[in-house]
Amino acid sequence: MERRERKASKTAEKAGMESKSDRPQEDRILEGRNAVLEAYRSGREVERLFLLGGCQDGPILTIRREAAKKNTPVDYVKKERLDQLSLTGHHQGVIAYVAAHQYAQVEDLLQAARDKGEDPFLILLDDIEDPHNLGAIIRTANLAGAHGVIIPKRRAVGITPSAARASAGALNYTPVARVTNLGNTIDQLKKEGLWFVCADMSGETMYKMNLTGPIGLVIGNEGSGVSRLVKEKCDMKAAIPMRGDIDSLNASVAAGVLAYEIVRQRFYKS
Amino acid sequence: MERRERKASKTAEKAGMESKSDRPQEDRILEGRNAVLEAYRSGREVERLFLLGGCQDGPILTIRREAAKKNTPVDYVKKERLDQLSLTGHHQGVIAYVAAHQYAQVEDLLQAARDKGEDPFLILLDDIEDPHNLGAIIRTANLAGAHGVIIPKRRAVGITPSAARASAGALNYTPVARVTNLGNTIDQLKKEGLWFVCADMSGETMYKMNLTGPIGLVIGNEGSGVSRLVKEKCDMKAAIPMRGDIDSLNASVAAGVLAYEIVRQRFYKS
Repeated sequence: MERRERKASKTAEKAGMESKSDRPQEDRILEGRNAVLEAYRSGREVERLFLLGGCQDGPILTIRREAAKKNTPVDYVKKERLDQLSLTGHHQGVIAYVAAHQYAQVEDLLQAARDKGEDPFLILLDDIEDPHNLGAIIRTANLAGAHGVIIPKRRAVGITPSAARASAGALNYTPVARVTNLGNTIDQLKKEGLWFVCADMSGETMYKMNLTGPIGLVIGNEGSGVSRLVKEKCDMKAAIPMRGDIDSLNASVAAGVLAYEIVRQRFYKS
Repeated sequence: MERRERKASKTAEKAGMESKSDRPQEDRILEGRNAVLEAYRSGREVERLFLLGGCQDGPILTIRREAAKKNTPVDYVKKERLDQLSLTGHHQGVIAYVAAHQYAQVEDLLQAARDKGEDPFLILLDDIEDPHNLGAIIRTANLAGAHGVIIPKRRAVGITPSAARASAGALNYTPVARVTNLGNTIDQLKKEGLWFVCADMSGETMYKMNLTGPIGLVIGNEGSGVSRLVKEKCDMKAAIPMRGDIDSLNASVAAGVLAYEIVRQRFYKS
């Protein structure tokens, strides 16, 4: 029985914090039209929106426009579901989960590099699902001197309480940006002079590549690796040597090994 | 409530599989004097032994001698506790938990290196507590071409179901040995020509060290690092460069970064 609960809770965390333990804390649940509209106006990150299906009045349409602008995932649900989610009983057909973590903008990450007088070094995660891996990678990013981490808004796990714990405090220092489309973000960052390298078994051995200069390191999903579209955007494919019998390293270990090869080439190659 | 259960279960896994979910499966619980004596005679690994306190007859004394020889942790408990642990109701004052995993001997790991015609490369874990870290490190050991992993019998986590899962199949290929005293094992392996390097922030930057040749890589506990006694046995202290704000990498990430620096120096340095 306990086993089943733990499994369910993990899936729920992935999907958007729905279990008892991962349901957002009270201060992250907004209910009612004004509260949710105000959240959008103040620029607060809305992670998920529950709207009463079929509702078309003015304020609701305004909220839907804001949600579309900000790419908030929206669930259209029945009144019974909203009643169940509601803490106050006064949801007026709208409930929002807002982010506990204040995400950064991609520009903030580039500015962090400029402030340090360093070539940008960013880590991009193509759909990491496990919050412990996400936290461990943010921890690694901090210690490898990366200027920030970029994660996608959809599918991937966000900064949940578990991810924050696993980051061991790195979240207080290393900015994390969430973007709608990782491929578009890569295109934009290429214009800023970054080169992109992804972890890929079919690539060249990482030790033989030139990983110096402004760089974005792309780490793929735990099961399926880097997606085809993102891989096609990358300038280089780096392979970690595989001298064993199984298929792949744990995603956060792979991120660490590649991030430190970048550190070695940046600072210790001579 | 669920949160509390999960926490309790984690602690229990550390301590020796006592919660509902981590209690050994039926085929790992042996009850009765003959069953337990036979396990010792056949060389099967006994992880934990529960004996009726104050019981001094012949077979029990024989079991106690075997337990002492093999360094099995023994709990002397009341009859009520044995009745509670018993699945059959016929424990005769003795219940043993046997290992699901068949541990290797240290000599097997050295033989694996000889068979491949390679200098031995072993990874020693000084009290890793988290089964996910243990599993991820075994996974890394396999892919980095290490010939095996050595863990201590006491305090540290063993090959629990969670650790096996996290190894992603590497346990089928990479032998894991459990030893009574990590320091003594290091002394023995030094006689076989191995050099030992531990992860330590106060050490020299790993890129500048010579990590080629027969080597044992020592990774410390998640919270407290490598223990003083083990550290004193190590020939070298290797520091992973820390270019950030927090204290340390996740233990399995640190193991990966160091293991791959050894791979680089072994195979790609020229």
